[in-house]
Amino acid sequence: MANDKKIKAGIIGGAGYTGGEMIRVLLNHPDVTIAYIHSRSNAGNPLYAVHADLLGETELTFTGELSNDIDVMFLCLGHGEAKKFLAENEIAPTVKVIDLSQDFRLGETSNGREFVYGLPELQREKIATASNIANPGCFATAIQLGLLPLAKAGLLNEVHTTGITGSTGAGQSLQATSHFTWRANNVSTYKVLTHQHLKEIRRSLQLLQPSFGGEINFVPVRGDYPRGIWITSYLQSDLTLEEAQQLYKNYYAGHPFTHVSEKQIDLKQVVNTNKCLIQLEKTGNKLVIHSIEDNLLKGASGQAVQNMNIMCGLDETAGLKLKSIVF
Amino acid sequence: MANDKKIKAGIIGGAGYTGGEMIRVLLNHPDVTIAYIHSRSNAGNPLYAVHADLLGETELTFTGELSNDIDVMFLCLGHGEAKKFLAENEIAPTVKVIDLSQDFRLGETSNGREFVYGLPELQREKIATASNIANPGCFATAIQLGLLPLAKAGLLNEVHTTGITGSTGAGQSLQATSHFTWRANNVSTYKVLTHQHLKEIRRSLQLLQPSFGGEINFVPVRGDYPRGIWITSYLQSDLTLEEAQQLYKNYYAGHPFTHVSEKQIDLKQVVNTNKCLIQLEKTGNKLVIHSIEDNLLKGASGQAVQNMNIMCGLDETAGLKLKSIVF
Amino acid sequence: MANDKKIKAGIIGGAGYTGGEMIRVLLNHPDVTIAYIHSRSNAGNPLYAVHADLLGETELTFTGELSNDIDVMFLCLGHGEAKKFLAENEIAPTVKVIDLSQDFRLGETSNGREFVYGLPELQREKIATASNIANPGCFATAIQLGLLPLAKAGLLNEVHTTGITGSTGAGQSLQATSHFTWRANNVSTYKVLTHQHLKEIRRSLQLLQPSFGGEINFVPVRGDYPRGIWITSYLQSDLTLEEAQQLYKNYYAGHPFTHVSEKQIDLKQVVNTNKCLIQLEKTGNKLVIHSIEDNLLKGASGQAVQNMNIMCGLDETAGLKLKSIVF
Amino acid sequence: MANDKKIKAGIIGGAGYTGGEMIRVLLNHPDVTIAYIHSRSNAGNPLYAVHADLLGETELTFTGELSNDIDVMFLCLGHGEAKKFLAENEIAPTVKVIDLSQDFRLGETSNGREFVYGLPELQREKIATASNIANPGCFATAIQLGLLPLAKAGLLNEVHTTGITGSTGAGQSLQATSHFTWRANNVSTYKVLTHQHLKEIRRSLQLLQPSFGGEINFVPVRGDYPRGIWITSYLQSDLTLEEAQQLYKNYYAGHPFTHVSEKQIDLKQVVNTNKCLIQLEKTGNKLVIHSIEDNLLKGASGQAVQNMNIMCGLDETAGLKLKSIVF
Repeated sequence: MANDKKIKAGIIGGAGYTGGEMIRVLLNHPDVTIAYIHSRSNAGNPLYAVHADLLGETELTFTGELSNDIDVMFLCLGHGEAKKFLAENEIAPTVKVIDLSQDFRLGETSNGREFVYGLPELQREKIATASNIANPGCFATAIQLGLLPLAKAGLLNEVHTTGITGSTGAGQSLQATSHFTWRANNVSTYKVLTHQHLKEIRRSLQLLQPSFGGEINFVPVRGDYPRGIWITSYLQSDLTLEEAQQLYKNYYAGHPFTHVSEKQIDLKQVVNTNKCLIQLEKTGNKLVIHSIEDNLLKGASGQAVQNMNIMCGLDETAGLKLKSIVF
Repeated sequence: MANDKKIKAGIIGGAGYTGGEMIRVLLNHPDVTIAYIHSRSNAGNPLYAVHADLLGETELTFTGELSNDIDVMFLCLGHGEAKKFLAENEIAPTVKVIDLSQDFRLGETSNGREFVYGLPELQREKIATASNIANPGCFATAIQLGLLPLAKAGLLNEVHTTGITGSTGAGQSLQATSHFTWRANNVSTYKVLTHQHLKEIRRSLQLLQPSFGGEINFVPVRGDYPRGIWITSYLQSDLTLEEAQQLYKNYYAGHPFTHVSEKQIDLKQVVNTNKCLIQLEKTGNKLVIHSIEDNLLKGASGQAVQNMNIMCGLDETAGLKLKSIVF
Repeated sequence: MANDKKIKAGIIGGAGYTGGEMIRVLLNHPDVTIAYIHSRSNAGNPLYAVHADLLGETELTFTGELSNDIDVMFLCLGHGEAKKFLAENEIAPTVKVIDLSQDFRLGETSNGREFVYGLPELQREKIATASNIANPGCFATAIQLGLLPLAKAGLLNEVHTTGITGSTGAGQSLQATSHFTWRANNVSTYKVLTHQHLKEIRRSLQLLQPSFGGEINFVPVRGDYPRGIWITSYLQSDLTLEEAQQLYKNYYAGHPFTHVSEKQIDLKQVVNTNKCLIQLEKTGNKLVIHSIEDNLLKGASGQAVQNMNIMCGLDETAGLKLKSIVF
Repeated sequence: MANDKKIKAGIIGGAGYTGGEMIRVLLNHPDVTIAYIHSRSNAGNPLYAVHADLLGETELTFTGELSNDIDVMFLCLGHGEAKKFLAENEIAPTVKVIDLSQDFRLGETSNGREFVYGLPELQREKIATASNIANPGCFATAIQLGLLPLAKAGLLNEVHTTGITGSTGAGQSLQATSHFTWRANNVSTYKVLTHQHLKEIRRSLQLLQPSFGGEINFVPVRGDYPRGIWITSYLQSDLTLEEAQQLYKNYYAGHPFTHVSEKQIDLKQVVNTNKCLIQLEKTGNKLVIHSIEDNLLKGASGQAVQNMNIMCGLDETAGLKLKSIVF
């Protein structure tokens, strides 16, 4: 693709974790050129002043200026900040907006902008024609990918879910629970049975299975590692293991990033990739579903690029064939 | 206590993880002298040849010889090995046996030796008069301590449990899942809903609440740290948080190692100690119980010494006031 | 020791890392009773409000009041704060002061109080009769213990030293380099060749070998683990390995916490203990000395208690036979 | 590049760590097609049976057959095995061989095959016309990149070097020092002052500065993380910091993967990339050089692909613009 045909992307909030991942992915995206990276507090500084790993890869600088001469705008702002940003700045209606915050995931609008929930495995067609995307939450993505095939088959009932997340899920702010000395070798939980992602999860699942009562008992756990989300869900099911595996394989057949493994999975299979791996087990009348992802990629910036690819008619995997860390 | 009045302890299988912890605790126990530490493969070697951290603390050596001139024998052998050891060796009936394997936890006997399940918070009085103890499993201890008060009050129903364990729970054998490169920053599960400890857990709970159907859905997770077990269980309950906290505090009032925290807990509060901390939460009609321990101490060797203290009429905490690692 | 004969200790700055370790050690010290734990910001709160691992072990609270009805005062304050505290508060001359900061390690005085550098392996006799102790720095302790025997034999020349420290060495303040996400799996250096501990190290070594020019090239490294210091030093030497080992063994013969290992050592042999282990290697004309310790114990609070034991005529190891974490 | 014009690569020893990284890089390389991946023990199995992270990315299988219908052969075998492989198998002289072992780094030949030492920053032109490459060792690469500019300027004298390596440096064999329980939170050293990479390092440096006596005092340290090498070297130098930085920037000006940072660096800036970052410090008359890399990429498989790119006239960075893990 010639350079002047490339999609022009603007990144708002480029100094945070998801902003940094957005930059890393887009820098090597064959069909995208980064028009600007907005960060008020870092305006004028080179990217590598904040994202030190970019040294030697780009001489781009942060800017404090906005421009509408872009095709896509990624909002990598804190929760609540995206809404405020759209209210305070005039974004041309031709600019596609992909918001990574939770501000527009439940049907909220901004100046007439309506947002499509950006989970390709749920509604790729709607995303393809959308002008604005509410990018799903990290936990929400992994949990939904573990349950969508059951919901579509109308087989969901009360779900029991454990989720373990890396420290990047909590962002870069300094707090007691982000101190290395505290978190190393430690385990703790938070928002047990009350995590805010449950709302967007229920909304999606009820789209597919309106009768689903929405009982999802979710125990979020802080893991002592930086990247990745592990989800184990289980529920009552009459399906045999083989039937369940077939159901999942059929559902994800056309989706390039979500795969069913017949072998036991482990988290590092997906860390630093945009993939989600799913493994099923059956014990007695319980179906167990493990689903894993990198919280910053498939759970945030990678999925945002995947949405952009779909919206812009590109190959869904463009720029997203990332080498896993493995070890 | 004068030296000749001290309890004489023999340790069988002194080269493994639980054997090593037994030695570390007993070396500083004010009322115990270690008579011998048996290990066929290490006979003649100083302890620090295997347990390198003991350098400078003792010049004791392993022995390949057994003797009945002891008061207590700790069996720190692999599962199946304890049964075999007792069948093949003549242990004097006056020797109290504390077995750390799972060989005698479900009512099994050996040459007429009957074993009392050694969970002091369940049945301290029975332990006090026992001759032989089946020391509980590590996961089993933490899960039971989270549920005993409810069982005693007849309030148990279907339980949903997540358990995360450090790598020491899997012993010192070299295998793919014990390789540092694999386990570091990784998450995985094993024996989902089928863990062998469920049997001993159900047995204890039904002792207190015979009507309990025993449905415990347990998801065991491999954590990427060496020591400690985190348990989160939840179930339906009509108790308010305050009622539940009172129930637990009453139950554990006389037990020196198990405490109820009103603040959020984290695993490192108990690592390298013999304590179990419990924290309760209430959301909707669900009662959430977090319970944590060090898998090698309260979950193995520490609890074995606690049982010995009770059996021998010592202060239950003797030798077990251990400094936590905290960080 | 009857309770009214116990040594009464006051701890100033009880809410930090070294204050917490001081409490943990003294709570189980057979000959000490904690008179009070001073912390202005936490006055009135139970200790476990700050040091959560102490839940169930003590109901002591922090106090904002000072008292001179104590035998020993431990100053667990930041660098610069100890000097200020002594200037602003009237401490009875009968109270022995053990300062863990770096404020008095180079001969500084306060209101006529003179401080003895509290490295027992350097000058136990001077410590035994001292009224005030400047407790050595963590890196300084491990580096000196690796070099003292050579200095005493007049064999020091230019030294090359690498030191790796756990995150607790940097205290509990929140900063970019203490964020879990940054520090996990990371390596970095700081104060290369300019670390402030070099001054106290040179001072001690020149006490033993006045001709020593003091060239110590020290590269401090941030390790991605919470506790422990690893030191590797090397220098030119004509000694054979056997001669060097004998020199070190002779030097440390009467010292209960410092031991020479003939086998390869690893850091976790000493974590959570007051020990220092030393291992020697000889390659060509270079003598290599590895020395390891727990930075919060032998490198701070443990050594402070060791000094107190010596000053008060107690067994030097009283309260300091701590179980290592090992794993 | 049309598919039939792509470079055909064969990988020998595809089941190990470096073999796996080779596959991961080549799968996404725009100008390469993988002809076959040889592994006797895994013949017939899909790649993801061994490299589980490749699930969903390729259906390629391992083969036990060799073929000469390739352009480049990568030998990812153990030390000693590469030599044996070339002796036992007839490789067509038209096939370029890139060997990742240490078998041919010191001028060894095999059946008339002569090997060029494959460090592009040392001798890109020689690599461009070579038929066979001896790919440098991981430590050797990082240490040399930290010293080459000084050697070229004839400014090397006795060097003092500390190197810290991740666990992948030790390969996937199970041994006591690769057990998670042992290595987590631990530090240890090995081959102090005697590491085998010193030979190839001296050889390269003497190419540039024949007068260099080759005194490199190297302390290798086992880090408790999986990936990455940190090197700190220092030596006497009359250069100012600015002069040294200029010297290094000039030297690496045309090299796309090696960069000089004026800010403090940390290891995770390069993990999962093919980059080497260098930072200089000056204290007194000592020049300090930090150099960092990913041991499996710039230290092994990434550099092998870089060599292939150079040998085949491709863009040196083709397929090697990898997203760092950062966190």
